[in-house]
Amino acid sequence: MKIALAQLNFHTGNFALNTGKIISCLEKAKKEDADLVVFPELCISGYPPRDFLEFSDFIRLCQEQVDHIATFCNGIAAIIGAPSVNPQVEGKDLFNSAFFLYDKKVHSIRNKTLLPTYDVFDEYRYFEPNRNFEIITYKNTRIALTICEDLWNINHNPLYITTPMDELIKQQPNLIINIAASPFSHQQLTNRTRVLQNNARQYQLPVIYVNHVGAQTELIFDGGSMVLNSKGETVKQLNYFKEELSFITTAEIDSLPAEIKTQDKYASIYKALVLGTHDYFDKLGFKQAILGLSGGIDSALVLCIAAEALGKENVRAVLMPSQFSSDHSVSDSLKLVKNLGVKHDIIPIEKAFNQFRELLEPVFENRPFDLTEENMQARCRGLILMSMSNKFGYILLNTSNKSELAVGYGTLYGDMCGGLSVIGDLYKTEVFDLCHYINRTAEIIPDDILTKAPSAELRPDQKDSDSLPEYDVLDPVLYAYIEECKGPKEIIAAGQEAKVVERILRLVNLNEYKRHQTPPILRISPKAFGMGRRMPIVAKYLI
Amino acid sequence: MKIALAQLNFHTGNFALNTGKIISCLEKAKKEDADLVVFPELCISGYPPRDFLEFSDFIRLCQEQVDHIATFCNGIAAIIGAPSVNPQVEGKDLFNSAFFLYDKKVHSIRNKTLLPTYDVFDEYRYFEPNRNFEIITYKNTRIALTICEDLWNINHNPLYITTPMDELIKQQPNLIINIAASPFSHQQLTNRTRVLQNNARQYQLPVIYVNHVGAQTELIFDGGSMVLNSKGETVKQLNYFKEELSFITTAEIDSLPAEIKTQDKYASIYKALVLGTHDYFDKLGFKQAILGLSGGIDSALVLCIAAEALGKENVRAVLMPSQFSSDHSVSDSLKLVKNLGVKHDIIPIEKAFNQFRELLEPVFENRPFDLTEENMQARCRGLILMSMSNKFGYILLNTSNKSELAVGYGTLYGDMCGGLSVIGDLYKTEVFDLCHYINRTAEIIPDDILTKAPSAELRPDQKDSDSLPEYDVLDPVLYAYIEECKGPKEIIAAGQEAKVVERILRLVNLNEYKRHQTPPILRISPKAFGMGRRMPIVAKYLI
Repeated sequence: MKIALAQLNFHTGNFALNTGKIISCLEKAKKEDADLVVFPELCISGYPPRDFLEFSDFIRLCQEQVDHIATFCNGIAAIIGAPSVNPQVEGKDLFNSAFFLYDKKVHSIRNKTLLPTYDVFDEYRYFEPNRNFEIITYKNTRIALTICEDLWNINHNPLYITTPMDELIKQQPNLIINIAASPFSHQQLTNRTRVLQNNARQYQLPVIYVNHVGAQTELIFDGGSMVLNSKGETVKQLNYFKEELSFITTAEIDSLPAEIKTQDKYASIYKALVLGTHDYFDKLGFKQAILGLSGGIDSALVLCIAAEALGKENVRAVLMPSQFSSDHSVSDSLKLVKNLGVKHDIIPIEKAFNQFRELLEPVFENRPFDLTEENMQARCRGLILMSMSNKFGYILLNTSNKSELAVGYGTLYGDMCGGLSVIGDLYKTEVFDLCHYINRTAEIIPDDILTKAPSAELRPDQKDSDSLPEYDVLDPVLYAYIEECKGPKEIIAAGQEAKVVERILRLVNLNEYKRHQTPPILRISPKAFGMGRRMPIVAKYLI
Repeated sequence: MKIALAQLNFHTGNFALNTGKIISCLEKAKKEDADLVVFPELCISGYPPRDFLEFSDFIRLCQEQVDHIATFCNGIAAIIGAPSVNPQVEGKDLFNSAFFLYDKKVHSIRNKTLLPTYDVFDEYRYFEPNRNFEIITYKNTRIALTICEDLWNINHNPLYITTPMDELIKQQPNLIINIAASPFSHQQLTNRTRVLQNNARQYQLPVIYVNHVGAQTELIFDGGSMVLNSKGETVKQLNYFKEELSFITTAEIDSLPAEIKTQDKYASIYKALVLGTHDYFDKLGFKQAILGLSGGIDSALVLCIAAEALGKENVRAVLMPSQFSSDHSVSDSLKLVKNLGVKHDIIPIEKAFNQFRELLEPVFENRPFDLTEENMQARCRGLILMSMSNKFGYILLNTSNKSELAVGYGTLYGDMCGGLSVIGDLYKTEVFDLCHYINRTAEIIPDDILTKAPSAELRPDQKDSDSLPEYDVLDPVLYAYIEECKGPKEIIAAGQEAKVVERILRLVNLNEYKRHQTPPILRISPKAFGMGRRMPIVAKYLI
């Protein structure tokens, strides 16, 4: 049997686009004499459709697409992911389903058993878990059809009390197919391959795995669909970060040589952020970006990513020096925009800042210059950038990094403005590493930007390290707390200074209110700020 | 048996406060010779603890509190809600539990079966559902101990395939106790009473129901704990929106007369918003609020609520007229601040606005005045308010209403600034109704504010109705889409004009990106913007 793996970039709720892509793949696969085309989980709706699933109108549209696609399944079968209505009155109203289409109709439906409801996933919010297990027989192949998480209950601390393959194996399948919506994180590539390997080995079956590619707001799907033989070796690996339609015959799976594609951490993060930025604009129907270029490393990195994602002609950088800006901030920025060939403007903010100080003088009286005046400068810049965004139809890119978002070292409605946070899931130390990756063959980002001490330049001679621990102390503590959910005792026991740890964790929790109002953040780690980390604002833990 | 109902205001993660309140109630109940004190669901941690539940340090602290509280249970028993660790390796690591404390130790633990995972609830994110059912026998009373949602599977389209009381009733209990964390909405009071009634009637048992009171960020718990007899009549009803410790004996339940407390919709919404505002400040350790007073109805209403919640001496209103402000905007606002006895400032924004126009002239060239310049004014005001907030330690109150948040009729980083959105869950027509409620005995809000046509006053002679349908057309369409999840076909079929409906739904979906960055919104409806409504930003449905 010849099977096509259709790794496509879908768009949530864009039925015309998604169905069009699916039908086009079916037609191509027919020409290649394929017997079956496998599409990803919930590809009809795009993933995640989130609360659109609560609209019966949306579900009706999904069903219409499935029925329409079925009419193209003559002489070929398709597996497509879509929501289906639970026929039982008890339980949630929907299943997360894999439709097996054949002979121009819906031949059978298999439902997802394990519903990820953690981190960025909310599946039990919408779906009833499956409790019936049945393989699908097609052209003498006995297929254990599973959906993403269904294969993931294979570790030492399983999240679920059921393991679908333990049920399906009783019916003696000879192939596992898994349709997935598995978003990128820099640890996910390894985890995912290991999980699929473990399944192939445990059940001694080949595995065909088809994933989404493309970004949906903060989630970036990296593709990386693959075929494993029954020894758990990868014998086919599709592209990362690109659409692909690829073919394999069941006969050849166990004879193909094992191939291993590895990805460097920063190479894959870079590609992920470029794709994430590109798709955010493309799927919203925007072409052009604006951002403030401070002379620091964060905005320099975002500018590089934006120029790659959107084309240098579609990015506009604005330099907004104040009386506290160093000369090299402007000169370093000018070098960078020249290297990239990006358009720029220089708009000094001093007059606007002074105007507000004058307006507020009767209220502030003789109170000293403090954080207020620092924030005022950041907000003058935000106002200028948003005005240009409004006037010309640009999306403003936010340039905050994860370290500063964590401890609240940023101004709400100032440098925290923007439609998309490009590097908000990179710790400052990772920002440096990614810049070095970009500069690996030539100096794109001027060396001076990479070597000077980080500073917000909002008062004379300011440095980040005046207010914060050095980043090589700060970042490991943040990682232990945010990614690893360790408490203060554990982090201190691991060798960090108690006072520093307590201060950092307190800052993280105190600044939940700021993060509540940040733009969506492109997720590249296993625990990003945003939909995957849900914290109360009014809470006293560690504060 | 004498039972105390302890309806208390807890603070998420504030173990010292929560445990202190619990112990203090236990001591009071001992003096009253009570046999049992019933506290609400997850009262140890506060509800909802959200992702703090993923920190084993947090769970350890919860367990320490339970053990400590148990030492006070000599001669008295207590039922308290707290997370407990799932002893099985399979499944989620925690249960949402009711601890029965007696004889200075944990006598038994009962776990929640039905885990609400919809709207604002995320319980399956953290907890494994219970599958074992056992009543608790204490002083000859056979107690069916259930936790909140456990009693809610009692309707025509049940969300769950299990109904805990159907299992427990087999063991012949003679009392149902339900500990809850059931947040307020203006429809919830009726729903909740009906659900408890249905349980009492179906199982022919009295019900003791104990709920939280107090606000946790956006969720407002209204209390309203109650006792129903086995005919489903309410024989005791605790206060709404106030802490209370109340006693009842099991013997008297079936002999007490039925009492019915009803709440007017706007009276209860007003109390909810006052409590929500008060607790947001109080639990964050803030005392004072600032807000911009435009002369319109929204900011007028927020000022009234803030003055009631925080005390008039703790609220500062800022009038920021521009060249487009009408004279009556200032005079109406001055009347209002005088009526309320609130401090005010007048800071005209014209100079700041003109300064930015001058700075941007080289970039904007001769492009006409458009939405950009309107947004610039709103952002100048936001900057002034945030500067005062920073300088003096005020929290800025946001004054957006639900109608304008729905269609994006507001300026991000301008009038959408703020730490808390007080009326963001009230449609504009409800804003009017609530103002009339406030004015029911005296003219607090000047009549002119209530009768003039709504306007943002950002260009000459502007009215909301220039850009939007009239609110009595807009609001019903929004309600059908947001609260009722109806699609365009259904809304049009119900008699609304097709073009208007399509335009409104398109605006709602297009402006998801703005709502992503709003402050937390006090929830008073069954479907508020925020954590209970999760929409993709990059999506094409109805756009």
